[in-house]
Amino acid sequence: MTYTPDSGLFASPLHIINVGADLFADALTSQGVPVDRVAWKPAAGNSDTALSVLLDDPRVDHANQEAVQRMIAARPRLVDVRPAGEVIPGMHRHLLLHAGPPITWERMSGPLRGAIIGALLYEGLAPDNVAAEQLAASGDIAFAPCHHHNAVGPMAGLISASMPVLVIEEPIYGHRTFSTLNEGLGKVLRYGANNPDVIAKLRWLEQVLGPALARAIRATGGIEVKSLTAQALQMGDELHNRNKAATSLFFREIAPYLVETGTSTEETASVLRYIHGNDFFYLNLSMASCKAVTLAAHGIAFSSVVTTMARNGTDFGIRVSGLGDRWYVGPAQLIKGLYFSGFSEEDANPDIGDSTISETAGIGAFAMATAPAIVQFIGGTPADALQYTLEMYDITVAEDNQYQLPPLNFRGTPLGIDIRQVVRQNLLPIINTGIAHRLPGVGQVGAGIVRPPMECFVGAVRDLAGSIQEAT
Amino acid sequence: MTYTPDSGLFASPLHIINVGADLFADALTSQGVPVDRVAWKPAAGNSDTALSVLLDDPRVDHANQEAVQRMIAARPRLVDVRPAGEVIPGMHRHLLLHAGPPITWERMSGPLRGAIIGALLYEGLAPDNVAAEQLAASGDIAFAPCHHHNAVGPMAGLISASMPVLVIEEPIYGHRTFSTLNEGLGKVLRYGANNPDVIAKLRWLEQVLGPALARAIRATGGIEVKSLTAQALQMGDELHNRNKAATSLFFREIAPYLVETGTSTEETASVLRYIHGNDFFYLNLSMASCKAVTLAAHGIAFSSVVTTMARNGTDFGIRVSGLGDRWYVGPAQLIKGLYFSGFSEEDANPDIGDSTISETAGIGAFAMATAPAIVQFIGGTPADALQYTLEMYDITVAEDNQYQLPPLNFRGTPLGIDIRQVVRQNLLPIINTGIAHRLPGVGQVGAGIVRPPMECFVGAVRDLAGSIQEAT
Repeated sequence: MTYTPDSGLFASPLHIINVGADLFADALTSQGVPVDRVAWKPAAGNSDTALSVLLDDPRVDHANQEAVQRMIAARPRLVDVRPAGEVIPGMHRHLLLHAGPPITWERMSGPLRGAIIGALLYEGLAPDNVAAEQLAASGDIAFAPCHHHNAVGPMAGLISASMPVLVIEEPIYGHRTFSTLNEGLGKVLRYGANNPDVIAKLRWLEQVLGPALARAIRATGGIEVKSLTAQALQMGDELHNRNKAATSLFFREIAPYLVETGTSTEETASVLRYIHGNDFFYLNLSMASCKAVTLAAHGIAFSSVVTTMARNGTDFGIRVSGLGDRWYVGPAQLIKGLYFSGFSEEDANPDIGDSTISETAGIGAFAMATAPAIVQFIGGTPADALQYTLEMYDITVAEDNQYQLPPLNFRGTPLGIDIRQVVRQNLLPIINTGIAHRLPGVGQVGAGIVRPPMECFVGAVRDLAGSIQEAT
Repeated sequence: MTYTPDSGLFASPLHIINVGADLFADALTSQGVPVDRVAWKPAAGNSDTALSVLLDDPRVDHANQEAVQRMIAARPRLVDVRPAGEVIPGMHRHLLLHAGPPITWERMSGPLRGAIIGALLYEGLAPDNVAAEQLAASGDIAFAPCHHHNAVGPMAGLISASMPVLVIEEPIYGHRTFSTLNEGLGKVLRYGANNPDVIAKLRWLEQVLGPALARAIRATGGIEVKSLTAQALQMGDELHNRNKAATSLFFREIAPYLVETGTSTEETASVLRYIHGNDFFYLNLSMASCKAVTLAAHGIAFSSVVTTMARNGTDFGIRVSGLGDRWYVGPAQLIKGLYFSGFSEEDANPDIGDSTISETAGIGAFAMATAPAIVQFIGGTPADALQYTLEMYDITVAEDNQYQLPPLNFRGTPLGIDIRQVVRQNLLPIINTGIAHRLPGVGQVGAGIVRPPMECFVGAVRDLAGSIQEAT
């Protein structure tokens, strides 16, 4: 073959690939040159050395596979409803459990303080709000994360000894997990409200709803939660801020048993109307189930899979399978979303609640592709919802084929957040969430989208790399 | 300005639009020339003259707007369940109503004959199958379309005097419409099965389910059907072959009233379990509601909007708003779809049932964009489901914003099939449907996609053009 000037590099049209920052690509595009853009950002937080340790070690990949296989194999079953004080290990009358990582009274945000005041009134430990606040600050009440007791709670996440909790049993890995009964929307304890109506509803949950559900659930012999969740994911729920289908399916499942085990027609009808009136009823059940799923994956040496993400309204904390029970925290972020009439960003408390256990288990915002209708509640467009899910495949270890997303041609949900990929791609997990008013006593003011602070993941990457280098 | 050779037609890049057949466009594409393709086919059935009459007359457009506005304004409410003989006008003990256009015993398909035999056994008009068949052929039993009595029935669509029927009241246009209670899947009368189990279930519907639902529905004061349908369309139902969300929402709505009006705990629990066990329960309610909606649009002079599509297993028939009660029929088609294990196309009966009232009212296959999970039942891919809905906007008059489809960014359902556009674009309405075995007594063998025969629409276009020319 003879060389001619025409056969060189520039004789045929250039195929240009732009990696990372868009400046160069934009310049070419403006001149009519086609460019393939590859999203790339430098790794977060100067973590290249730690990342290369973690990415090069096959034990990490192996441990991560084990972590996601356990999450997929876990089989959470709803078996009972019981007072927290009777079933949650270590629970006692002067202990209050809350959402997120550990925090002292002094650093707590408004809605968490409001919920604590409400719980002390509800438990009869204080006669009024002023006395409750003094007691909370006195040191005579112990506070601990729900997660330290295998429990989870939405928003403030308050659990006190008398509250009825859903009891999940996971037979394969042998855990029991817990969550309160959902209080519905409006003025509720989990958003920091604590007026007499809020307390009266908590009393009704304790005295009527809890015992009625307990009788019915025991009569079923146990309900497979993943089956309901999988069906709801094909019915427009993502199971964090849209639980309408799942609540309906649970309602269908439990109603005949409520009838058969009810103590009176009036009471049974009131219990049915309560669940019917609250499309978030399933959320707490889903969260307790996700807690059982992620607990199955916790404590695997070398694994870089996240097993907890939770916020207390001040701090956002994560825990990682291979890093034991240590929390990695950063500041809770402000939420971008839709506000209820009369409220704005100025009213918003930073991110709060254990409900991010949903995303940790691969559903919630990670499954938004299947829930386009949710954008009317949290903002954005159906195309955004689709895109959120697609992004999450880049930072997760597996796809959970038990949970198929019809709009993605039945692709499984993105499962098992890998801290290495979060840091390397500088791509944070997506979360959808309710927005609490920053003052105690007000309640929900909106809903939207938020991400964790990157520093949680950077800190965990460094520690995991350090622990691997020590072990080698 | 001076003329230069460069300023002529061919100096700038050509923008090529290809209308209709793809041959020319393919040739250009293969040479790297970009082409915009416009789908276009010649009008069906040599109807250009009739079409030009109808497309040029503003009275047709005006009448069509009136038709769709009435469908949108109609407010069907479920108010009761009563024996057909007590509420359906003209119903009597020796009259059997069936799906589709009128048909004689001699021309009936297997599943319709099977259902008629079953209905005669159920009504005690014949002691056994042989006697029932003789009676059916004797002329002593009258047959009429459900549609002639403001009723609709899925598949064979059999209604006899003792059967309990859902009663819909539409207060604005003053119609009452009816449908039977859904029998569930498996061996059921509507698919032509008629063994003793089928008859025993019909008896239970008459003696237990019908009266229990009647008491509960009356206690509600009436249920707004469009509200449930609108919610279900945001939960993955299209309301023809996927009714899981709508059935769940109806279940939630009615359960407390069933409890309060029940005669015994055991009976209430059995009624709840029956509805819970049948994700098609809502279909018949939806169909009766769609019948009330389309009836509101019927009988508007000059309107080319379809107000009935129905099949009896032999013929497919349509009726058009501006053409009175005349049926335009053609042969019922074979269905392309998924077959249950052990069955194939050879077992299939042609298209049967009144359930195409769903598509006539803009839901069912017309709303498949919102129901990607349905493709696991009827075949195809989620992308096909989306495409079916998009196509239907081309042959319909309006978008029904009461029924918003989240995957299409909350676009309203395509409403009001215009026979002019069906013929002009040679584009038939899409229908999804169950497949009945062609022999009496067997039942459902699959589900899939089908279209009506074009000749119904061509005949109606000619007659409507003729009637307009006479009136002018």
